[in-house]
Amino acid sequence: MLIGLLYPPSIFRLSRIELKEKMLIEKYIEVRTQTERLCAPLHKEDYIPQAVNYASPPKWHLAHTAWFFEDMILKDYLPGYAVYDARFSKLFNSYYQSIGVPAARSDRGIITRPTVEEVYTYRKHVDDHMKVLLNSDISENVKEFVILGLNHEQQHQELLITDLKYVFGLNTTWPVYDKNCNYLASESGDSGSTTIPEGIYEIGYSGDNFCFDNELNRHKVYLQSYEISNSLVTNGEYMAFINDGGYLTFSPWLGEGWEWIQSEKIRHPLYWHMVDGTWHTYTLAGLIPIDLDSPMSHISYYEAEAFARWKGARLPTEFEWEVAADKFSWGARWEWTSSAYASYPNFRIREGALGEYNAKFMVNQMVLRGASIASGTNHSRSTYRNFFHPEIRPIFPVYCSTVSIYIK
Amino acid sequence: MLIGLLYPPSIFRLSRIELKEKMLIEKYIEVRTQTERLCAPLHKEDYIPQAVNYASPPKWHLAHTAWFFEDMILKDYLPGYAVYDARFSKLFNSYYQSIGVPAARSDRGIITRPTVEEVYTYRKHVDDHMKVLLNSDISENVKEFVILGLNHEQQHQELLITDLKYVFGLNTTWPVYDKNCNYLASESGDSGSTTIPEGIYEIGYSGDNFCFDNELNRHKVYLQSYEISNSLVTNGEYMAFINDGGYLTFSPWLGEGWEWIQSEKIRHPLYWHMVDGTWHTYTLAGLIPIDLDSPMSHISYYEAEAFARWKGARLPTEFEWEVAADKFSWGARWEWTSSAYASYPNFRIREGALGEYNAKFMVNQMVLRGASIASGTNHSRSTYRNFFHPEIRPIFPVYCSTVSIYIK
Amino acid sequence: MLIGLLYPPSIFRLSRIELKEKMLIEKYIEVRTQTERLCAPLHKEDYIPQAVNYASPPKWHLAHTAWFFEDMILKDYLPGYAVYDARFSKLFNSYYQSIGVPAARSDRGIITRPTVEEVYTYRKHVDDHMKVLLNSDISENVKEFVILGLNHEQQHQELLITDLKYVFGLNTTWPVYDKNCNYLASESGDSGSTTIPEGIYEIGYSGDNFCFDNELNRHKVYLQSYEISNSLVTNGEYMAFINDGGYLTFSPWLGEGWEWIQSEKIRHPLYWHMVDGTWHTYTLAGLIPIDLDSPMSHISYYEAEAFARWKGARLPTEFEWEVAADKFSWGARWEWTSSAYASYPNFRIREGALGEYNAKFMVNQMVLRGASIASGTNHSRSTYRNFFHPEIRPIFPVYCSTVSIYIK
Amino acid sequence: MLIGLLYPPSIFRLSRIELKEKMLIEKYIEVRTQTERLCAPLHKEDYIPQAVNYASPPKWHLAHTAWFFEDMILKDYLPGYAVYDARFSKLFNSYYQSIGVPAARSDRGIITRPTVEEVYTYRKHVDDHMKVLLNSDISENVKEFVILGLNHEQQHQELLITDLKYVFGLNTTWPVYDKNCNYLASESGDSGSTTIPEGIYEIGYSGDNFCFDNELNRHKVYLQSYEISNSLVTNGEYMAFINDGGYLTFSPWLGEGWEWIQSEKIRHPLYWHMVDGTWHTYTLAGLIPIDLDSPMSHISYYEAEAFARWKGARLPTEFEWEVAADKFSWGARWEWTSSAYASYPNFRIREGALGEYNAKFMVNQMVLRGASIASGTNHSRSTYRNFFHPEIRPIFPVYCSTVSIYIK
Repeated sequence: MLIGLLYPPSIFRLSRIELKEKMLIEKYIEVRTQTERLCAPLHKEDYIPQAVNYASPPKWHLAHTAWFFEDMILKDYLPGYAVYDARFSKLFNSYYQSIGVPAARSDRGIITRPTVEEVYTYRKHVDDHMKVLLNSDISENVKEFVILGLNHEQQHQELLITDLKYVFGLNTTWPVYDKNCNYLASESGDSGSTTIPEGIYEIGYSGDNFCFDNELNRHKVYLQSYEISNSLVTNGEYMAFINDGGYLTFSPWLGEGWEWIQSEKIRHPLYWHMVDGTWHTYTLAGLIPIDLDSPMSHISYYEAEAFARWKGARLPTEFEWEVAADKFSWGARWEWTSSAYASYPNFRIREGALGEYNAKFMVNQMVLRGASIASGTNHSRSTYRNFFHPEIRPIFPVYCSTVSIYIK
Repeated sequence: MLIGLLYPPSIFRLSRIELKEKMLIEKYIEVRTQTERLCAPLHKEDYIPQAVNYASPPKWHLAHTAWFFEDMILKDYLPGYAVYDARFSKLFNSYYQSIGVPAARSDRGIITRPTVEEVYTYRKHVDDHMKVLLNSDISENVKEFVILGLNHEQQHQELLITDLKYVFGLNTTWPVYDKNCNYLASESGDSGSTTIPEGIYEIGYSGDNFCFDNELNRHKVYLQSYEISNSLVTNGEYMAFINDGGYLTFSPWLGEGWEWIQSEKIRHPLYWHMVDGTWHTYTLAGLIPIDLDSPMSHISYYEAEAFARWKGARLPTEFEWEVAADKFSWGARWEWTSSAYASYPNFRIREGALGEYNAKFMVNQMVLRGASIASGTNHSRSTYRNFFHPEIRPIFPVYCSTVSIYIK
Repeated sequence: MLIGLLYPPSIFRLSRIELKEKMLIEKYIEVRTQTERLCAPLHKEDYIPQAVNYASPPKWHLAHTAWFFEDMILKDYLPGYAVYDARFSKLFNSYYQSIGVPAARSDRGIITRPTVEEVYTYRKHVDDHMKVLLNSDISENVKEFVILGLNHEQQHQELLITDLKYVFGLNTTWPVYDKNCNYLASESGDSGSTTIPEGIYEIGYSGDNFCFDNELNRHKVYLQSYEISNSLVTNGEYMAFINDGGYLTFSPWLGEGWEWIQSEKIRHPLYWHMVDGTWHTYTLAGLIPIDLDSPMSHISYYEAEAFARWKGARLPTEFEWEVAADKFSWGARWEWTSSAYASYPNFRIREGALGEYNAKFMVNQMVLRGASIASGTNHSRSTYRNFFHPEIRPIFPVYCSTVSIYIK
Repeated sequence: MLIGLLYPPSIFRLSRIELKEKMLIEKYIEVRTQTERLCAPLHKEDYIPQAVNYASPPKWHLAHTAWFFEDMILKDYLPGYAVYDARFSKLFNSYYQSIGVPAARSDRGIITRPTVEEVYTYRKHVDDHMKVLLNSDISENVKEFVILGLNHEQQHQELLITDLKYVFGLNTTWPVYDKNCNYLASESGDSGSTTIPEGIYEIGYSGDNFCFDNELNRHKVYLQSYEISNSLVTNGEYMAFINDGGYLTFSPWLGEGWEWIQSEKIRHPLYWHMVDGTWHTYTLAGLIPIDLDSPMSHISYYEAEAFARWKGARLPTEFEWEVAADKFSWGARWEWTSSAYASYPNFRIREGALGEYNAKFMVNQMVLRGASIASGTNHSRSTYRNFFHPEIRPIFPVYCSTVSIYIK
């Protein structure tokens, strides 16, 4: 359901043109291997729990991404292919109602069987058959599905890490995923700001590489002049908001945000813990003291919005972000925008199950722009649209509110 | 929290210019009298119940609109004014947290005291003092507040009728508010459609009359070409959607819409009842058979969206609606747009309690455009922005989905 | 669903024997008039609201008790009787599923129509026809139903006052029902205690007067020796529990009681308010300072149980209470016992709708014994079994924990 | 929180007398080994999930029973003992608030760490130190604690299997725990019934072996004459209830039972599945067709009560059951009684954390009597009191309603 060019260290974006020259099968292997590489540090116990309704266990991500290739491609395009286990379709279908009623989302943490090993066997079975298919003469249409499937799997790679951090973060033994890497961004960007002049701009994807359907059609928008900060909000700046009573005063909050922090008793970002009088944060390298100069992360839209109002600023729209993104260097981060997730002009819903990929989420969610921390600059694109409900906070690896100054 | 030029038969929009020539006090009396005129057909029993969290009882609307003038104007601008009853501030403050913690919204239906008569006495007290104030030499600033207060009261007039219909509609004796008027629109508009060419358009209020802060600033947007239907969706068209299994098939629905119709067991618009094999609808004139040619109403955003997808169309954005609204005649109706409620460029949040009027609702709500059935054409404005959560259905008097054709 | 000979100042218990000598019609008029007398101080606004799911508005009590006579008696036993309004059966049926699906219990506060006046007209209609019936030659069976109906109405008299106090108690204007009477008990009883020797005792109703089916069959129980306090717990004693951190310490609480006080944020009895550093309590005569020597009231079973454990004592079983009740004088009070509500040996469920009167509540409820404050000593009986869920607190007029000493 | 001498094939009840002759350490090893033997068939994946709030994962049961010995015994009675890992106390404390705030019960399924292997290491650590302690000269007091700890662990053995079946039963691949044993009772007992004469009976534990505090004090009760069925209700009898519309008719149900089957959409016992027109049941040997002559199991108190009413019978009280239990042979089964869980006369709450063992559950729960399927006749005792909320259904291995005939 999510994000872009994600986590992998060496995955490159799959170009349509490129496919005429390179072997799609190499890319397939690279993406699939990367998913399993991410799971290498895990114990079997880590594969199972689901800590919250909107997250999924690693085992589920592994099985679901295999099921996606099996159900969307192998079943229809590999002659003679027999479904590996019909019961998996109910267990590992995420939400594609056209394909059958999926198991309740909240039940992903009670799947004892198939075991982790059986899921890896299932993945291998799918991979073996995908290789047969990819070595055969396949249509452009099937190639497109494969590329979509790989981008889909990359999205789940980031979700897997996001969800893993969430369940680990609830464990007071502070599990360490990789002791050498906390997966936090360390640089908040240049100081200063960029001013964008009023005028017509083009929005949406235009190149030859893969993009998701929600990035199309490319179209013109008219923007008023605005000034956008070059730097990411730091932990230190956010701490000033907290210390100023930011969570205790109604005025900067949206009404629903205020109700949310009351009912959830929220007084600081996710993963922050006060230990012996010092703020720490849980990371995938364990619990560490907070670095005031690093970009802050793991806050909800409600918090980002309140912080911006408190600063006398506001969040950018997704269009303002996209236009500015091309002007300056931006590293790894997801940033809340003030735009609700909606379709672009002349958005076309795909036929069949894949039409459910993006379109049916277009209500009550806010757009995030950017990319994950581990994606190299060249692997991210400014047109990518991530989206979450405004109360969601585990979004990995970094949220950084780039706020634009309100112009009187 | 609501809508515009509303219900009253003879109220005109209050112009800033006009105020230099006419007596504001006349307008004040006219609006205030209209609120009480709306309540004339009520029994005391009807003043009390709150059927759902987002609705309020007539007694509350009456008292809240008096409190608004007292708290926002009299307290600060009428020298020597003493608050009528300090306890009322807690009971009849809607949501202005800057003024004090309001009573829980869900508790508006348990207010036995003050009695209805006492509330009318309170209103008279406020009116008497407002007349003193309005007969004195008041600043432009205070005039602005009075005009806002009157527009606010007009919004509550429509809400009062909306909420009344809702609580009456749950009563199987089908109470009659006015036997001569069902308050349904009878004409669905011209057939055919209007095509708007691609280009830059101006959006937002620009005249000299009153408008709400969320209609500003007027600014340019760039629209792609689109074709918008001139006519409102009729009951007959919607019935075709129902009969085609519209509520039983996932494909046209947003994911959250689908979950909502399952959990709420929704299979038809609000107020529809099948009686002896014929669809009827509850109206303020009682239960009547549905007229297939009339515009349909009382559906949620989810249903409007699903209906439009089922038609192979989509809902217009609020900008598309606003631009088209000036091109053709439109009568009384509220129309769901596909735009989430957000601020316009350079929107400025007012200082103090009135800053809470609109800004803090800007998340998870969809914009409706148009006006209520009883507003004359000249009393409505195309820039008016109403907004509700996507599951709300009682919106009065008429919802009409003007759908624009999806362009391939 | 409730209690016994209740509230009325001059109602006497209806004896089966007595009925052969006196006119049942006189008793009918006396009970029915008393219900309306209780409503004399009310404004129409007070008749409508339902503050909590388990309470009902006065209008509903008035209509329901009329419906009971109409549906259980007139329809079947008055030749030619035509139902007054078929729609009332859905609105005013409490829970008798055999008779049709009643309206949702939580919807009793949204019944705008019939109006209060129409309900009184309905009552008069029922009364007129009941008088015709009672003046005719009726069977013993019908007499029994009438007597049950009157006892049922008396139960609703107490509920009406209980529920009224609850909705008034939520109104910060502290409505006054009767300024001369706060309906609190003023005496807590003699000091000292009574010791009951081990042995066989008879439990359950045995006389010739009316009793409810749940008081039968009279049967033997074997009790161990126990010592029971003669006096009611006072506000002062309970305040000591509060001041000792009673609500802040887990140890005296049942597990579910502890969870309940956390989730409901309960720190003192219902209706207590700290005003300017002094505990006050809301009464039907308004808000008054708490009298330390008066019996305390309006606490849940959980609180009563915790208080008793804190005292090093326990609550009596309903059998211990019943046996002791005959030994000493007891005034007006309801007392929580430690007995769950269950049937007596050889309890027989009545055929038809009246079989639902008591039997279907026999799970998850605790028995209270005693009577209401306004019932004279001679009007109460020691075998009467009231019952409520353990978290219910508004029970009127007085709760008094008579605790028995734990014997080492 | 649960049941008695439970599941193990060869564990015998621990007698206080016996302890003077035999080594307590042998029993310790036997019980502890049995717990781990029960887990032998599990995959690591099976150790983790928690399917419902009132169940716990195997890993949690393993760790909690080790923690119990560590926290209740080693910490206080083994000189120099250092707590293994202080963080475990929060994770594996079940509900003993005196010892510290336990982790939320609903979070037992998200404990990734410690791993299963680490939990077994923890158990070994505890065992090693317990052996040191048990080889030393320990007081009678400590012996008592050890015996309680072993009985506690045996209770968790049954819970472990119960909870495991529940989470497996939600997995549509129907995991097999032991293909040779479905853990269902196969015999429903003799036909006919036993009549117990009216009189005084003794209730509660009286021997020299271990019993729980809630089985004391032994005391006299007076029972009316009753006739109790010798045989367990069979699947066939229960199917007749279903086929007669038992789940569709209000009359036999308690009010809360009826609401529960509506809201939970319950139409048959837990674990029943209709496959190709035949009722099957999930067992620990997989999915098998239902045997009509076997005792039925896995129904809630609500269902047991409704079934009994439908039969024209009722459930026995726990006293009726206990008295009858000694008259005839009874095999392995848990039986719902109509008695709410409450303390016996002169029940004494233990000081300290162990006082929380039973007493704080004494509200809203119903008593079950009997024993688990795997307990030999000689290992069970008629005074044992199990208890659950009336809606709980997974109780393992067999529920069998022994109903007594209602005497006219």
